[in-house]
Order: sequence, then C-alpha cells, then structure tokens
Amino acid sequence: MAPDATSEQLDAVVDTVRGAGGSAFVSRGVHRTIVGLVGDIEQFQTLNLQTFAGVADVVRISTPYKLVSRDNHPATSPVNVAGVEIGPATFTFIAGPCAVETPEQTLAAAYMAKNAGAALLRGGAYKPRTSPYAFQGLGEKGLQILAEIRDEVGLPVVTEVVDAHDVDTVAAYADMLQIGTRNMQNFGLLQAVGSIGKPVMLKRGMNATIEEWLMAAEYIAQRGNLDIVLCERGIRTFETATRNTLDISAVPVVHALSHLPVVVDPSHSGGRRDLVVPLSRAAIAVGADGIIVDVHPHPDQALCDGPQALVDADLDQLTAAVRDLPPLLGRRLS
Amino acid sequence: MAPDATSEQLDAVVDTVRGAGGSAFVSRGVHRTIVGLVGDIEQFQTLNLQTFAGVADVVRISTPYKLVSRDNHPATSPVNVAGVEIGPATFTFIAGPCAVETPEQTLAAAYMAKNAGAALLRGGAYKPRTSPYAFQGLGEKGLQILAEIRDEVGLPVVTEVVDAHDVDTVAAYADMLQIGTRNMQNFGLLQAVGSIGKPVMLKRGMNATIEEWLMAAEYIAQRGNLDIVLCERGIRTFETATRNTLDISAVPVVHALSHLPVVVDPSHSGGRRDLVVPLSRAAIAVGADGIIVDVHPHPDQALCDGPQALVDADLDQLTAAVRDLPPLLGRRLS
Amino acid sequence: MAPDATSEQLDAVVDTVRGAGGSAFVSRGVHRTIVGLVGDIEQFQTLNLQTFAGVADVVRISTPYKLVSRDNHPATSPVNVAGVEIGPATFTFIAGPCAVETPEQTLAAAYMAKNAGAALLRGGAYKPRTSPYAFQGLGEKGLQILAEIRDEVGLPVVTEVVDAHDVDTVAAYADMLQIGTRNMQNFGLLQAVGSIGKPVMLKRGMNATIEEWLMAAEYIAQRGNLDIVLCERGIRTFETATRNTLDISAVPVVHALSHLPVVVDPSHSGGRRDLVVPLSRAAIAVGADGIIVDVHPHPDQALCDGPQALVDADLDQLTAAVRDLPPLLGRRLS
Amino acid sequence: MAPDATSEQLDAVVDTVRGAGGSAFVSRGVHRTIVGLVGDIEQFQTLNLQTFAGVADVVRISTPYKLVSRDNHPATSPVNVAGVEIGPATFTFIAGPCAVETPEQTLAAAYMAKNAGAALLRGGAYKPRTSPYAFQGLGEKGLQILAEIRDEVGLPVVTEVVDAHDVDTVAAYADMLQIGTRNMQNFGLLQAVGSIGKPVMLKRGMNATIEEWLMAAEYIAQRGNLDIVLCERGIRTFETATRNTLDISAVPVVHALSHLPVVVDPSHSGGRRDLVVPLSRAAIAVGADGIIVDVHPHPDQALCDGPQALVDADLDQLTAAVRDLPPLLGRRLS
Repeated sequence: MAPDATSEQLDAVVDTVRGAGGSAFVSRGVHRTIVGLVGDIEQFQTLNLQTFAGVADVVRISTPYKLVSRDNHPATSPVNVAGVEIGPATFTFIAGPCAVETPEQTLAAAYMAKNAGAALLRGGAYKPRTSPYAFQGLGEKGLQILAEIRDEVGLPVVTEVVDAHDVDTVAAYADMLQIGTRNMQNFGLLQAVGSIGKPVMLKRGMNATIEEWLMAAEYIAQRGNLDIVLCERGIRTFETATRNTLDISAVPVVHALSHLPVVVDPSHSGGRRDLVVPLSRAAIAVGADGIIVDVHPHPDQALCDGPQALVDADLDQLTAAVRDLPPLLGRRLS
Repeated sequence: MAPDATSEQLDAVVDTVRGAGGSAFVSRGVHRTIVGLVGDIEQFQTLNLQTFAGVADVVRISTPYKLVSRDNHPATSPVNVAGVEIGPATFTFIAGPCAVETPEQTLAAAYMAKNAGAALLRGGAYKPRTSPYAFQGLGEKGLQILAEIRDEVGLPVVTEVVDAHDVDTVAAYADMLQIGTRNMQNFGLLQAVGSIGKPVMLKRGMNATIEEWLMAAEYIAQRGNLDIVLCERGIRTFETATRNTLDISAVPVVHALSHLPVVVDPSHSGGRRDLVVPLSRAAIAVGADGIIVDVHPHPDQALCDGPQALVDADLDQLTAAVRDLPPLLGRRLS
Repeated sequence: MAPDATSEQLDAVVDTVRGAGGSAFVSRGVHRTIVGLVGDIEQFQTLNLQTFAGVADVVRISTPYKLVSRDNHPATSPVNVAGVEIGPATFTFIAGPCAVETPEQTLAAAYMAKNAGAALLRGGAYKPRTSPYAFQGLGEKGLQILAEIRDEVGLPVVTEVVDAHDVDTVAAYADMLQIGTRNMQNFGLLQAVGSIGKPVMLKRGMNATIEEWLMAAEYIAQRGNLDIVLCERGIRTFETATRNTLDISAVPVVHALSHLPVVVDPSHSGGRRDLVVPLSRAAIAVGADGIIVDVHPHPDQALCDGPQALVDADLDQLTAAVRDLPPLLGRRLS
Repeated sequence: MAPDATSEQLDAVVDTVRGAGGSAFVSRGVHRTIVGLVGDIEQFQTLNLQTFAGVADVVRISTPYKLVSRDNHPATSPVNVAGVEIGPATFTFIAGPCAVETPEQTLAAAYMAKNAGAALLRGGAYKPRTSPYAFQGLGEKGLQILAEIRDEVGLPVVTEVVDAHDVDTVAAYADMLQIGTRNMQNFGLLQAVGSIGKPVMLKRGMNATIEEWLMAAEYIAQRGNLDIVLCERGIRTFETATRNTLDISAVPVVHALSHLPVVVDPSHSGGRRDLVVPLSRAAIAVGADGIIVDVHPHPDQALCDGPQALVDADLDQLTAAVRDLPPLLGRRLS
C-alpha cells in the first residue's frame, strides 16, 4: 500500500481478494503496509488491484507457468525425436544448412553433418527474412528435399514452421518442428504445434525474457504437447560486435526453472563463423543438452547466412569438441 | 579489406562485383584498402562478400527499403481512414478500450472517446497475451460489437488482426487493421494485410530497430498497400520503472526517413495511467501525426491492461491537451 | 520461501529478522509461503536472507533512497543557481558550447544562448572522451574563460567536473557543477560535490536505471547538499539511429518519485542537430523543468560534438519553442 | 553523400579532406555517391564532415585504438603478475572475498582460494556501492590485511582502486590493480594506473561496447603500461533473471581484435551462486585466460554480495573444473 493509504483502502483490497476466494495477510510497518495474497494467481490478475486507491505496487511472487515448471515436475524430461533422445543424459548435435537451396547442396550439407557427429539434420524450407527482397525459402518443395535426404542419409529432420496453417504440411515431412525467434509469441502458431503430436524446438525470442520464453512453452504444453526443446539463440543488446548476444547463463537458469531440455544455437547468436567453435565449446561446458549449427558445402554461395556457416577446418574442430567434451561433463553423444 | 589482404584477394572481390553487374571503386590507404560498391544492393547481398578471403568487413551504406523511403517519395503521405485523414496537416486522436469485453463497456468507452475528441475508435477483439491463462479476446463476436458501435457512435474502427487467415474477416468489419508489436515480423500476416485494400496501423516491435520497422512496412507496401500508419509504442530496455521505454525520438527519425505518418501509443509504452497525459503531450509536441490511447469506463474491472486505461480527470486533461496543443504546432485536429 | 522449504527453514528466517529488530509476518499458501518484513531495510540487507536455505527469492518493496524521495518531502524543491530558479514554477533554458575552445568561440556562443532566451550558460572545460586521441578540454584555462564571459554576458555558468580533486577549483569559477553521464556512479566525486555548497546538475548514467540515478543523488544529498537538478540525457539501447535513446518518460517518473527538478538534454541524447528542436518541444510538453542545449557559432569547426550543435534557423525555432510553449503548461521562463 | 548532394558539396568535402592531408576517393553510383577517406583518422574526426551540406552519413571503417590492437601486435601478450603468468598458454584462477571484512575472514577465504587452485588472491578494500547506506570497504586498513595475508598464504594480490589519488597507496600494497565496471570510463583513473608500473585488470563497463572497452585500455596503454588484463563481467540487458548478462562471446571477439589477455568474472555477472560453476566451465571452454571468483567462509554473513560467494560443495566442483578442463583446451593452470 502507499504510505498514505487509509484503512478503508486497505480493507477494500482485502475484501476484494477474499471475495475472489483468496487469502490476504496484512503486514503493517511504521512506514508501509504490505498485503500478501495467497490463492489462484490468475484469478488475482483479473482484480486489477494496481488500480485500487491506496495501492502503491503489485509484485508477483510465484511463477506464471505451471506445466513446464520444475516445481511441478522435478525430473528433467528427455525429448525423443524419431529415436534420438535429447537430454538430460545425452548431448545432441544438430547440424545442416540454414536454408534448403537445392537437393545437391542439402545432401552435401547432410553428409557434412553426419560425418561431424550430428544426430539430427536441420534445414529451413520456410525462411522468415527481415527484408522482403531476400530469399524466402523453397516452401513445400524444400520439405520434400529434406524428407528424401533423411531417407538417404539417415538423420531425422528438424525444420521451421512459420504459419499456423502450414503445421500439418510441415509435420507430414519433419520429425521435429522448429518455432523461430520472430514467432516465439505467435500464439496461434504455438497452439497449432501444441496439437500436432510431434516434438517442437522453441527458439527464444531475441527480445524475450526467460520468463516469457517459458510462458510461450506453456502455450504449447497447454494443448497437450510436452515434447518441447528450448533453444537459446542470443538476445538483442547494445553490443554490435556480434549479431546478438548469446545469453549462455540462460542454460543453467532454465534448467533451474523448468524440466525441459535446452540447446544452444552458436551460429545465429554470433552471426560469425569464427565464433561458432568457441561458443559451441562454451555451450557444452555450461551444461546445454545440445547445439544446433549451420553447415554449408560452399558458404560463399549460400543464399542465407553464409558468413556463419561452418566448413572444412572449423567443422573439424567442432567435430572434435562434440566428441571429446560431453563425456567429461557426464553426457554421451546421442 | 583486412590489413594483410593480398592483391589477388582484392581482385577476387572486384571481379565478383563486376561479374554481378556492379561497379567497384578501390581506395588504397597505407594501412587499409576500401572497396566502394555501386549498383543493385540486393544483388550484392547474394555475393556473400563477407566470406571472401581478405575481407575484413562489409558495411551497407544505402537504405534497404524503397517504397516507404522518403528518398523516392519526398512528400509525406496522408492516410485516409473512412474519411479521417492522418497526417501531415492533421493530428488524429484514436481512443477506445484495450479489449472489447461487452457491448455496454465498449459503447461507454466509445462515447468517452468521442466526447474527448477522438476521430477513430480503437478496440481489440483478438488479443495476443503473454500468458495462455489470460483473457484472449472475444474474436468475431467482438468485431460485431465494434461494428454496431461504430454505426451508433459514428467513429470508424481500428482493430488488431493476429493471424493471416483472419484478415478477410477483420477487414469485413474494420476500417483500419492493426498489426501488434509481437507480429511486426510475422511476414505472412504483413503480406496478407498488404493485399486487403484497407489502411494498416503497424506497431513497432518492442525489440525492433527503426530500420527493421520500415522493412516490415516495406513488406506491406510491396503487396500494393501504401496506406500504412506507423505506431511507436515503446521499446524494451533495461529500465523497469516503465513497461517499455517510449522512443520519442523515433517520430522525427521516421519522418526524416519515410513518407509514412507515425502515431504514438502512450498507454502501452508506459503501462501506467499517470504517464499517459504527459507522454501524450510530448507526442504532440515532438510532431507525431496522432496518438492512440486506452480508455475504459471502469478500469478496475478491465480484463486487459486496466492499470493504464484513462477515466475521469485524466481523460479531461487529455481532452484539453489534444484540443489545445496541435494548433500551436500547425496541425488541425482531424 | 521455496515450495519445498521446511518449517525449520522458515523459522530460521523469522528468527533472524526478529533478532535484527524487525518484524516478520508469515503468509502461508497451498503452494508457497511468503514472509513480509517490516523494519529497517538497510539492516535487513546485511542479513543475506537470499542465502538462507529454503529461501526462493527476496523482493524489496520500499525505495532505497530517503533524502531525495518525495515520500519524505512532498513538495518539489526549486533549486536556485545564482538567482535563477529551476522548477517547479519555471522553465529554465540552459545553452552554450559543448566545449570551451577559445574566448571568441565561447563569447559568440554565450550571446547566441542569451539571445535565444537562455538563463544559464553551459560549457565544458574538462571533457571526458571515449578516445584518448580526442580533444580533452582546456582545463582551468577554460574555467577562466567561462568566468570572464559570465561577467560580460551576464549568464551564470554550469560546467562539468570530472575528478573529486578538481571540485574546489571548478567551484571557484562555476555557479553550478555538472556531473557527467560517465561519472554518475563515481562515488568519490558525488561525495565531493555533496560537500561543496554549490548547486549540482547530475546527469543520468547512460546505463543507469532511474532508481540508481536517485541513489546517486542520495550520495550527494547525504553530504548535506540538496540543491540537485537531475538531467535526463538518453540511455543506451539496441537502437542505432540515435546516439542514445532519450527516455522522455523518465521526467514524469522522477517527478512522481522525487522532489528534485529534472531537465532534459536533447543534444547529447540524439546526437543529431535535426532532432534537437523536436526533442526540446517534447521535453517542455512532458513537464521537464528545463533543457540544456549545445550551440556553436561554427558547428563545422567544433572540437566536440559539432554534429549536434544548433545554429541559425534551428536555433530560431528553438527560441520560439522555449518562449511559447512553457506558459501553456503553466510555467514561466526563468 | 545524400542522394540530392550537388557537385559543389561533393567538392567541398573532397577539398577539406585533402587540405587536411588525407586522400579522398569518389565512387559515383546512380543513386548515391560514396567518398572513401584514407589517412589519419583522428585528424578526420576534427573535420566534422557530418555537418557538411550534402553529407548523408559518415561511417568509420578502421579501429579507433592502436596500442592494444592485434593489427599492430599479432602475438597475444602474457601479463606477469608477481611471477604468475596470465595467458595465452596458461589458465589463471583468481579467487577471494568480494570485500575484505576482517583479517580472519580474509585469511580463511585466502586458504579456500589456494586450496581450490587459485594463483592470485582477489579482495576489495575500496568498494564502490550503488547505495550510500551499504558497506563501503575498509580502505587502507583493508590493504594492510591483504598484504599480510599475501605473505602468509603466498598468493599475489589483486585489488580495486576507485580514485586516481589512491593509486600510489594501492600500488604500494597490491600486485595488480583492478579498475571496476563503474570506473571503466573514469579517464583520470585510467591515466593514473597507466603510469604506475604495475599490472592492471580492467573490468568491462556493464554498459560498454567491446570497442569502448578497448578504447579504455588504450588510455592505460598510452601512458606506457601494456600489462593489461581485460575482465568480462556481464553487460546490462533487459533480462532480469541474472544480475547482468555474461557476454561470453566477448572472449573470442576480444582475442580477435586485441593482443591482451581476457578473463571472466562469473560471480558478478550472474549474481547467483548456482551459476558460478557452470559459467566458469563455459569461460574455460570458450578460451578465457582465467576466471575471477568470489569465495567466502560464511556467505550468509558477508557484507557484500554474499548470495554469489562460493563455499563447500560448489567450490569443490569449481576446483575440479579448473583442474581438469584447461588442459583439454591446451592450457596449463598457472
């Protein structure tokens, strides 16, 4: 309550909370009175206590998500993607081209991924791009290419879906659906992938707090799908030396708050090829359940994000890191 | 070029640019060589020069948007919404409830708006909410309520659309379609409203640079719809005293870069009722083409954003500001 | 408390708080128990309750500053600078060159300021610069120039002090001492100006929350100097179109929290001459107690921040704004 | 140049650059003309080209620091602190209490540090604190305690200096001087430690870009002191789950730009004890030259930052990480 709140104003708050079925405990100090509310938080939200006369501030103490919270589900959930188990005992290396461009490029990238130790193939058929003049992806044709190459190379496929109405189509080809950073709060899309019965990789919005990210996962979980893998991919800050700032702390923070696995994307966060190997090592060491990395047979001809795609010596270094480091941290490569 | 770039590396860059139909001008210094590229920028993007050996950095000089740029369209475009003209000679006051809850609440809010001097009625039927447990709006039923109240009160209606597949439905009821902050880079939705033939209000993403915002407007414009009004509604920063930080400078910056009108949302940026009047005054003074404000007959019962909705004395102050200040800055109230 | 906290853990917290002379009120819910603390907050800080077993989180409710808080001092304090009254009934226009370069340049700028309606002259003799290769100011020689020009032109002088050991020297020449954005948390310097008996202008750190800014003011106030004027000058965000993002909302937020006057610096926040007039108008309209603006007789020869200094037509526009707008908002020009 | 720049305006720019001893290369395109400048960049800064008529934008291509740049000094410089070598072949573990409180507490913390494998002892005698009501350190008495404990335990001492006029005093006791995050742009202090002939640890400002951080190091180097170790300690972002966001990418980015070693502070960046071990592992893996960690024998009684100090099981885990991981990345523990 505000320092000058009256008893009547205090009573109004307490009565309203009790009228809504909650409990209100009053702590009176010399300068300030605090009212502790206990009960159904979502119900309290509709009371608009912030607007009551005499109320200085309303501070929420409990977490606003339930199904994805570790409070209600203490063991970390592994997520199974067509036989590949992600977390907590495994480390999963996911690799592939940023975008599916041609069957040949995708096949070459898939073999690069497999030879480097990847368990899953990534590749985009639908590409959300900042500029309307940039390459937007091959669409369903790209999905067909991915499905053919999965059969040939033997790696299950992770691919992005950008529109709720494409979810059935993408799910018909893919083993795991990816929600990109710009769609983390596209709630219709979250609900659609929540109903589809396939695992989902949910990238963090570049502007999203960890709490908002977990709330977005809650949207998916609420529709019955708990096979969610979170993906930290960098947040927007004032630093311009990197495309985004990889929030490496998000991995242990999420592990403390939620039972969902979390992987790291070192390619899109930094936007620079020379950072991919060191950031991948950091991700393994910090305890991530996996990484997802861009590779391309010819980065200088890539239609999307060529400057960050790995090839040759860098990829060899990453192969070694992914093979050697996870066992030291108690994980086997999945 | 990097300080240790070789002549061969320099030649490779120059040859590639010329092969793509561009011109490359070489400026050689003691420590560094700079290559200036002139030609079709979008074409250059596909060359991936950043990945070439010997290249230190690629810096883009020209703007990546065209249709919404003032360079190609020096006069500011007024946008006409069912007879209400937004910018550059007018100041447009848009008001209404955050969400349509009931016909009675919406009607009362609409009369509050009209009596305060508003020319357009805002109100949400589809509400994207961070929490899946929060009120999500009435959907098409809300649109019907809005349409009935428009006929009764005589204010054209602005309302949000959150899914590309609802665009036809929303356009059937609304006079102007609003794209919310979380959908600023929902490219499918942008393209859909670009094809619908009704004016669009494009809110800035809370994480978006001004350049990205103009690129999002370019997505709409590219489909043939140039009736776009931009809306600054605050960006995400480290400051926690306000929900977001209103970037008031964005108004003159956008006016310098683009011919589109720009309005300000003082309600959602601050998230506090006590800031709405001072921020509205600031918006008028900085040269905005309008403001869009939440009003509610009973903020303490509002299902959405009650703490920022105006009522009573605050609304009277805003009414006075909207009536008195624009003429001093050379604008008439539309 | 954490959901799995034991009664013993709860008792340990309660006993510790009571042992320190405070009161602890326990609110028990089904899922969570909240302990409300009432008493001497600074004392509680030393208890490290966050480190106790079973404690999930510690949330501070009361404000951590006292002397500058409006809670304890409801009326806004005007600050008197050599006869010029800053706030709450006045609007004070402060202008002058970013840096004192020569007597001629400073004199010309001082007359520009005076003719435009300024009541105080700004000008830097000590310039903290990001680059060690940039112009660092004239030092005491610059102070002498300022003092001579004050006598000639008749405007009291505001100038920056960057080192605690220069405070006496600067105070010997200046009417008001300025603490720059990079020194907002230079606590030795804050304490030094707190003991000097001259008014202080405290610029907000470009990275500082409003709470931290008020805490910095508290450092000055604690030494007995309450003649503090706060200056909002933009914060660092991801937006790159402006040098910093002017946080215009900070003005009413500070007015709600503190009794100190607050002015706005539209020159350094935007870093662009074309933004100075619109941002100045916004500052007046939002309720600022003044503005501080760079002017220069020859911006293209300025040794510091030439791109933002006003001259000619822009200055004429600002002169008109400063003359016409404050009366409409109930203030007289000081 | 702006699209509508005239030939005269272009000539004025070219003539001015040439008059200042530089070269100007003109690249003319259909829509835009670019002028490339080659010569003494610092000289160009004083020309204020941004203010010239017809100039649309000035973009700096070369780096603004020289002495600390890898361009001019390709090999990484190890820094020797009283016999302890920091980088590039070593990994240095620095540990100790946040603040020196008593001889007993400091001694106990020093033995904790040594037993855990630390090569240097950290500990603060001068503590810059956001609140004037918080513990401010013991001052010179704290330095004496540190010096005595160094002799007893055998670990060289790193301690913070907050005022230019204390540099001689601190240097008389310490083996390495630390510049804290709030003083990264306290230029007088930087210059003072640049003249003192002892190694310096320069923490990154929580609001500073990497470029500004290297510019601050340049201030020190310019006075003749190149024994500088950079320390990444988190930057300020919108995320509130951690005190600051550890910018782990800064380590490889700095290594690419500068020859100086860089260490990581996992304690102050996260502000949470449970993050220290995972972030330390990440720092080792990403290639940092060391870490600096808070330890305390009784965190619940610490006068400063108790919630992040390590003790017991966490410290055992860190001991193991520091012993086992660096050799895998080709470094020996120093």
